[in-house]
Amino acid sequence: MEPLKLGLIGLGTVATGVASVLHKNQQTIVRRIRQTPIIERVYVRSLERENPYNLNLTTNIDEIINHSDIDIVIELIGGIEPALSYIKTALTNGKSVITANKELIAKYGTELLALAEENGVFLRFEAAVAGGIPILKSLREGLAANEIDTVMGIINGTTNYILTEMSSKGSDFALCLKEAQAHGYAEADPTFDIEGIDAAHKLTILASTAFGIPLQFDAVYTEGITQISAEDITIARTEGFAIKHLGIAKKSEQGVELRVHPTLVPLTHPFAQVHGVLNGIFIQGNAVGEQFMSGRGAGSEATASAVIADLIEIAHNQTAQYSAPALGFDSHQLMEAPIIQSSQFESRYYINCQCSAKTDLKALSERLAEMASETLRSAFKIKIYDENHSVIILTAKTIEENVEKLMNNAMLNEGVVNTKSIRIEMF
Amino acid sequence: MEPLKLGLIGLGTVATGVASVLHKNQQTIVRRIRQTPIIERVYVRSLERENPYNLNLTTNIDEIINHSDIDIVIELIGGIEPALSYIKTALTNGKSVITANKELIAKYGTELLALAEENGVFLRFEAAVAGGIPILKSLREGLAANEIDTVMGIINGTTNYILTEMSSKGSDFALCLKEAQAHGYAEADPTFDIEGIDAAHKLTILASTAFGIPLQFDAVYTEGITQISAEDITIARTEGFAIKHLGIAKKSEQGVELRVHPTLVPLTHPFAQVHGVLNGIFIQGNAVGEQFMSGRGAGSEATASAVIADLIEIAHNQTAQYSAPALGFDSHQLMEAPIIQSSQFESRYYINCQCSAKTDLKALSERLAEMASETLRSAFKIKIYDENHSVIILTAKTIEENVEKLMNNAMLNEGVVNTKSIRIEMF
Repeated sequence: MEPLKLGLIGLGTVATGVASVLHKNQQTIVRRIRQTPIIERVYVRSLERENPYNLNLTTNIDEIINHSDIDIVIELIGGIEPALSYIKTALTNGKSVITANKELIAKYGTELLALAEENGVFLRFEAAVAGGIPILKSLREGLAANEIDTVMGIINGTTNYILTEMSSKGSDFALCLKEAQAHGYAEADPTFDIEGIDAAHKLTILASTAFGIPLQFDAVYTEGITQISAEDITIARTEGFAIKHLGIAKKSEQGVELRVHPTLVPLTHPFAQVHGVLNGIFIQGNAVGEQFMSGRGAGSEATASAVIADLIEIAHNQTAQYSAPALGFDSHQLMEAPIIQSSQFESRYYINCQCSAKTDLKALSERLAEMASETLRSAFKIKIYDENHSVIILTAKTIEENVEKLMNNAMLNEGVVNTKSIRIEMF
Repeated sequence: MEPLKLGLIGLGTVATGVASVLHKNQQTIVRRIRQTPIIERVYVRSLERENPYNLNLTTNIDEIINHSDIDIVIELIGGIEPALSYIKTALTNGKSVITANKELIAKYGTELLALAEENGVFLRFEAAVAGGIPILKSLREGLAANEIDTVMGIINGTTNYILTEMSSKGSDFALCLKEAQAHGYAEADPTFDIEGIDAAHKLTILASTAFGIPLQFDAVYTEGITQISAEDITIARTEGFAIKHLGIAKKSEQGVELRVHPTLVPLTHPFAQVHGVLNGIFIQGNAVGEQFMSGRGAGSEATASAVIADLIEIAHNQTAQYSAPALGFDSHQLMEAPIIQSSQFESRYYINCQCSAKTDLKALSERLAEMASETLRSAFKIKIYDENHSVIILTAKTIEENVEKLMNNAMLNEGVVNTKSIRIEMF
């Protein structure tokens, strides 16, 4: 059987998963592609390290990206540099590249895809979004007949784990973050996850694949989960909602909304059943209607599953020109669309007006109701949560401007110590 | 833009959907494949019919399957003959074929795939299973790195609609079937759906794609939903389960289980949230872990979404030899596996012993408990439902033989008028 020679860059969690899965499922993979994938060499920064699969290690990157015996380069070090330079060299040398690097694709993907096309090779990154869920393939191929108008997802396992723990234990954010770190579900520096940056990278890729627009990370409006309290979660549940951290991309006549933020979703929606580190993605297409996919969004072998799926595709198709492009469209066919600014997002909102213990909530809620009806000019629901010293307003669809105005005005009332808003998706 | 000329066989619901979706999404599809798909001709039995898209109709099948100006044949008449002969001729004439015909693929797929390979053309049938959900592509490509050990699904919208209605309204099967017929969700002759035959066709295709085994419809153990009562649904819910009609394929060292039957699933499992005519599919792979997908399993445009996805794949890949094979493996790479007989299926069971109104259920349940512990030799739960004149036994995993023995012995007790068993899946 002809070998298919792989050069890995990096030997971390995902790379180890790739070695493990190639090893344990070799027979079936060979039956599929009639070639034997072999990890020919692995680039590492130091040879002094664990090497459970006895792989051939090198500290010379040229033996991967500049060596004629490597068929496919698999980049698994993450971050921008040196990954960007390595991938450019590999593509220029006529090597197909597979990567799990969402940040790199979100920021430099359009340029890299053009370079891959120029050189007639593959650049694939299924593992960059939602781990083992074949969401990019589903968008660019399985649902390719559709105009997609919405793609939304729980696409960061760390934040979903923290929110799930906050919900099931009633604990506060800080405590759940610490526990997540102790379990290895959150990094020592958790900023990328809890501030929504990782989700924004992934949403950038999802939106491009769904809508055929250029990759534009800078256009994503991003909020993290640090402001969510256990109280918000409890109140939301009483009102029939779970709080999830969603990446949301919507396309309409007016343009494209790209946003990442905590969101109230109905308890009856499949999103509410996506617990812990799982990921879930909702798609709406104009032929297929609503679709939902869920599964492991991270982890060594789940992510390796996506990397190897890309590998199998390259082995089957052989020629990039005769394959679905990575985003479903050739890079010169990507079409710019106006990006809608966050002040113009239309959404329902949960507004929590937190009050001092002595406030007369009934009287306050009447004043707030008056303000709300003046500012929003549409239906809303207002409720007193005595135990939480809170007045909650659930709005109909409105623009952010109105909500900010209402929150500012609410703060002018004696007794109101803080206001906070979280968007609601109703499906 | 170069045209891609399609010949349709049939102009029913799905074909109309294909015409509709190609029309409304033409611009995006052309941007994807850089060709313009054109429905060149449609074979119909009579020209006297509605033709809302003004398609070019013919009653001469040779103008589709024997005509040089047709690039791709799309078969949408269903059933075995004449579809089988038409597809064979088209493949032999070097034309790629797309079909939504699950019965044909389940029964003749292995032979037809070999013929397609011989002629170097595509035979694709994404629309045959779960309508718009790209499940076959996900199994054969997106999850191709995995050894799949389980694929299960709610893959028949009619039965799921009926069970959902029975559950939400407490009505009996016969009434819900009538309503489903009135709403167009069940055929005038509903046998294929309610007896599980349609689901067995689809399960055959799912199992082949998941496990790389030959298509073998005759090996599927099949039960319909006609024996399920509103009472069973209510009791199951009290015990924490929904009743769903599942297609189940499992692979182990011992062989392959292929079965279609009503199944109790935990209310917390995503299957329990798949309502009405929706479909849902659960997959377990040895790298990716658990995956779940749901969406519309039938309907004009949802099914057309799958047909056109196949079309786009053919347009992109051009050469069948350099594409993932339809089942993920070339037909000569499909590997036989022992088929496990239904008497050897291991499962948990719900057993309902229905009694006459005057029976002393407490005394009876004690006798039944003794019998159960003797026959099953494993843990079980026994409960009295006074209102329903029923004693319910929920077993641990056991083989069917034991359950039948227990049910037969139960019938020997005075007062027991009927016994019934339904399998349970716990995940």
